[in-house]
Amino acid sequence: MKEHSTKQKVQHAARELFYLKGFHGTSLRDIAKKANVNVSLISYYFDHKQGLLEALMIQYYEHYLREIEEVQQQYKGKNPVEAIVRLVEAIIHYKQKNHQFTCFIQRELTLDNMLVREMLVTYLARERYVIENAFLDLLESQPYNQMEKKCLLVQFKGMLNSPYFMPHEWLDYVRWDGSHQSFVNHYTKVIRRWLESLYVA
Amino acid sequence: MKEHSTKQKVQHAARELFYLKGFHGTSLRDIAKKANVNVSLISYYFDHKQGLLEALMIQYYEHYLREIEEVQQQYKGKNPVEAIVRLVEAIIHYKQKNHQFTCFIQRELTLDNMLVREMLVTYLARERYVIENAFLDLLESQPYNQMEKKCLLVQFKGMLNSPYFMPHEWLDYVRWDGSHQSFVNHYTKVIRRWLESLYVA
Repeated sequence: MKEHSTKQKVQHAARELFYLKGFHGTSLRDIAKKANVNVSLISYYFDHKQGLLEALMIQYYEHYLREIEEVQQQYKGKNPVEAIVRLVEAIIHYKQKNHQFTCFIQRELTLDNMLVREMLVTYLARERYVIENAFLDLLESQPYNQMEKKCLLVQFKGMLNSPYFMPHEWLDYVRWDGSHQSFVNHYTKVIRRWLESLYVA
Repeated sequence: MKEHSTKQKVQHAARELFYLKGFHGTSLRDIAKKANVNVSLISYYFDHKQGLLEALMIQYYEHYLREIEEVQQQYKGKNPVEAIVRLVEAIIHYKQKNHQFTCFIQRELTLDNMLVREMLVTYLARERYVIENAFLDLLESQPYNQMEKKCLLVQFKGMLNSPYFMPHEWLDYVRWDGSHQSFVNHYTKVIRRWLESLYVA
């Protein structure tokens, strides 16, 4: 129990500090102070800061992919609009629930380093597979050419990620009415309308 | 002439290295090596790494805002679809032309530090003003409620930024046919179609 909660406190503090100050801008000492644990305990559990980052990223993506792959399985072969809308809901729900770490990960993934490359070939490739398949299923019988499909995909991914990059901007002037689920519902609705308009093009 | 080209070489190298390795991951020594200039010259021109970053950001935003504010003036009071499509073209054209630094800036702006806060209250506020006005002009006589308008705006901004976050992902599987202008044309076209669909909702 003690070990469990110390680890969790460290992870919680790290997620918040990485989000606010970036990975390089955060020291193990900052994290220890915020989590109110001894700095040596962080090294004991996670080896070093890079190890802590990796553990957090893996945890984030394992849960994320489990959720979206489950939705994919559940709606396989069903109505393509329904299938992709359920997927969008699952994605936005997960990202919103883990708001700060989602923002942080999107920032990290723009870098070119070993960890990012590992994430790209494992988790990001799986995410892409799920999202692209659902999207191309939707467009299949529609009269779009290859280049249009690619641009629509960029557009679609932009919608999925938009609330989580430049978070300051949204916090400031898109004053969501507070509830997590309300945002997920409203935002999914506008994306759904766009997806439907593509389907009947 | 000499001074001019040394400064430019340094700026060029810094833009590329910041993009690849991040601001913290890049040293003045890295930049000097890549630009093939003496490291003391960088300090002479830009004081320190932070000064170099500020100079690059200001340069980027000054040019960017000049271009989009010009378009805004030019299409004031004209057809709202035309006005916003021209704006989208100007934005995508500029971001695409400065691809690496655009990606880098989008990453930096997710941090919470003094420079970012300064950028937010000066340049980002002006950008937001231009983009929001054009977008709300488009929606004005349309039957959307406030919450829908906000969600549509998040969606819209996602489209504008999508090609420039997670650049690895796009480089890898969206193989644009090489030409800068071709991408701007195709991508603007799909955004235009979306904007038109909102206007006749």
